[in-house]
Amino acid sequence: MPFRLDARQEDFDAAFAAFLGTKREISEEVDDTVRTIISDVVARGDAAVIDYTRRFDRLDLTPQSLRVSDAEIDKARSACDAQTLEALELAHQRIVRFHETQRPADQRMTDDLGVTMGWRWTPIEAVGLYVPGGTASYPSSVLMNAAPARVAGVERIVMVSPTPDGVINPLVLVAAQIAGVDEIYRIGGAQAVAALAYGTQTIAPVAKIVGPGNAYVAAAKRRVFGQVGIDMIAGPSEVLIMADETANPDWVAIDLLAQAEHDTAAQSILVTDDTALADAVCNAVERHLATMKRAEIARASWNDYGAVILVPDLAGALALVNRIAPEHLEIETRDPEALVPGVRNAGSIFLGAHTPEAIGDYVGGPNHVLPTARSARFSSGLGVLDFMKRSSILHCTPGALRALGPAAIALGESEGLEGHARSVAVRLNL
Amino acid sequence: MPFRLDARQEDFDAAFAAFLGTKREISEEVDDTVRTIISDVVARGDAAVIDYTRRFDRLDLTPQSLRVSDAEIDKARSACDAQTLEALELAHQRIVRFHETQRPADQRMTDDLGVTMGWRWTPIEAVGLYVPGGTASYPSSVLMNAAPARVAGVERIVMVSPTPDGVINPLVLVAAQIAGVDEIYRIGGAQAVAALAYGTQTIAPVAKIVGPGNAYVAAAKRRVFGQVGIDMIAGPSEVLIMADETANPDWVAIDLLAQAEHDTAAQSILVTDDTALADAVCNAVERHLATMKRAEIARASWNDYGAVILVPDLAGALALVNRIAPEHLEIETRDPEALVPGVRNAGSIFLGAHTPEAIGDYVGGPNHVLPTARSARFSSGLGVLDFMKRSSILHCTPGALRALGPAAIALGESEGLEGHARSVAVRLNL
Repeated sequence: MPFRLDARQEDFDAAFAAFLGTKREISEEVDDTVRTIISDVVARGDAAVIDYTRRFDRLDLTPQSLRVSDAEIDKARSACDAQTLEALELAHQRIVRFHETQRPADQRMTDDLGVTMGWRWTPIEAVGLYVPGGTASYPSSVLMNAAPARVAGVERIVMVSPTPDGVINPLVLVAAQIAGVDEIYRIGGAQAVAALAYGTQTIAPVAKIVGPGNAYVAAAKRRVFGQVGIDMIAGPSEVLIMADETANPDWVAIDLLAQAEHDTAAQSILVTDDTALADAVCNAVERHLATMKRAEIARASWNDYGAVILVPDLAGALALVNRIAPEHLEIETRDPEALVPGVRNAGSIFLGAHTPEAIGDYVGGPNHVLPTARSARFSSGLGVLDFMKRSSILHCTPGALRALGPAAIALGESEGLEGHARSVAVRLNL
Repeated sequence: MPFRLDARQEDFDAAFAAFLGTKREISEEVDDTVRTIISDVVARGDAAVIDYTRRFDRLDLTPQSLRVSDAEIDKARSACDAQTLEALELAHQRIVRFHETQRPADQRMTDDLGVTMGWRWTPIEAVGLYVPGGTASYPSSVLMNAAPARVAGVERIVMVSPTPDGVINPLVLVAAQIAGVDEIYRIGGAQAVAALAYGTQTIAPVAKIVGPGNAYVAAAKRRVFGQVGIDMIAGPSEVLIMADETANPDWVAIDLLAQAEHDTAAQSILVTDDTALADAVCNAVERHLATMKRAEIARASWNDYGAVILVPDLAGALALVNRIAPEHLEIETRDPEALVPGVRNAGSIFLGAHTPEAIGDYVGGPNHVLPTARSARFSSGLGVLDFMKRSSILHCTPGALRALGPAAIALGESEGLEGHARSVAVRLNL
């Protein structure tokens, strides 16, 4: 049974705090293994990557066969059915168009003293994209990671993906081709992260690594942070649905389960001011589970981590929603826009009864790589800015330096940095 | 003696690669200690923080005296001389004005299908600012970290700073007051990072931690990443100066040394196409060193990590500069702007002979918290965006869902996520 909390009950605050503290992931202690793998790849390059791939993926590679060939990609494309290809193309087109509106502007301004200030944005030169293997190998995620990098102007996009026993998802290759990935290597795990960060004889290093992965990949990303940039460490996915008596319980139920079917550690939460809706949704969940293909996973997630939270009014419940900081927030109420200004912490907001999260997962346009595990409190979904960096610019005229110099000298001296002060003073003949 | 490289020599490529690979920091293995400290603070809260402060800072605190009182801050202010106070106020004003231009815009757009897409930016609710103690306790860094947070709209800014033997830099307290820091605690090290990330009985947790620190602080930030957001892991500072025959060797020399005086691991690099300038700068460096207060530190940095790189032409040398990816880039040439479009990787660019880096360190306006250790390849200086996050927004009309639904269903099915497909299909009566 999912958690059931009622904000009108006396013990609600304690129960809600306990619910917020629920751990959905067992953090495996893999750090020592990962450290060894990384050092080995740094020391031995290709040879180490090939050894680990033989051991973990039961696959024999050579430096020549690390990379997926163009012929293999073309073959994968011809194996895909036309309807799926068309859907991928449509998704890509919409994702690109949306992300094009995120391109940041450069800035220059000159103040009264003659100080010119501003910044320039430039793309990261090379980016690595990790794509998990097996059942979590999603072509839509390839689009969502690679498209914003391309829009940002990244010149070299490198994908890595493990292919246990040599098996690869053809749609992942096709998505990479559509999104303009430049190189694909059939490697995974900490060894692939190390190869991207430090380079090998065959794989040139990148400057940033993005994309989700298992505990080993996450630990490796954490370790190479600094040598390269990384995106968020992704956790299990979650949805929170705010609904009132106008919501369709059947639709709300399947949206909760679409989240739950991802992973037994996924989390689906309903927040409502209508007890009758809550009961109807719970019944509809059971009806859907009876016929869902991934019912076993979805049921485990719903029973272990699902929650129904009854509140006196939805506007007042925004404080709770902001504490949960859901990755996905659906608002299915009479007037969804009315609640938006009060949302502080949410990765993505889906408004109204006709915007199931699945539309945003695939073809809406905004990115589906979003902050999980309450990290929407401090971070954003993936976007074009994640593939660019900003250089600030400063230019002083001699007059501007005369005006600002004395203050800089005073501060340099107050910090005991006499050389700083002198670098200004010599220019002012002080 | 500093490195001397000449791009016209045959062995230059190998020598440059070796120079790029020079490690300037001994990475201490402090991770086990830090892990223990963090668990202890999580388990025992205030009591653990107080124990570690007694052990590391030789200071006896109680839960009541953890926080610096308003009276202490006022007393610190009255101990500061008027000129320094005025300089701090000017710096703060200019930093705020510059960062106000970085506030991002929200976005909403509706396409032909009736899909409304966009995003909202919101401030992070609470931010922690780490300020080192002792000689690296810089009031200017307090302004540079706190001002953009305040401009972003952060409601609660918490500063921590160790006060070994109870000694605190009054200017740091005053800078915090000027910048609008809400709470100051006299604690440091991994225990302060843990207190900010997880909270104690006295200190409410924050959602993001920024600011530089020693190896323990860096390791602690790396460990709490995920629980909270963090900024970059700061390394030793560096400057690269591109100069031609029009540059004043005396000015170039003191700019190199203003960097070197920070830390024996700091790095100062001159790139020039003029051998005579190179020689004149080296001579001027020695002249300045003879009278500099921090000559010992600056000389060690210059001799161990300093470099003079001779190149046939400066425009062609931009490829080298981009590989170095300097934190600070000064361009002192006849036409500095001409080189700017070719700069790809640099934290901050200082143009012309009258813009010594020290102006940007204090009163220019742009932030002085910048990416070190080649991380300008993938990251930016601190700014308003680091204290905000973006929630994406999606809204479909029934017609938009009809138009996009079939593609979402196809992709959901192709990924084996039948619940995703069904969440769209039920709304279309499919």
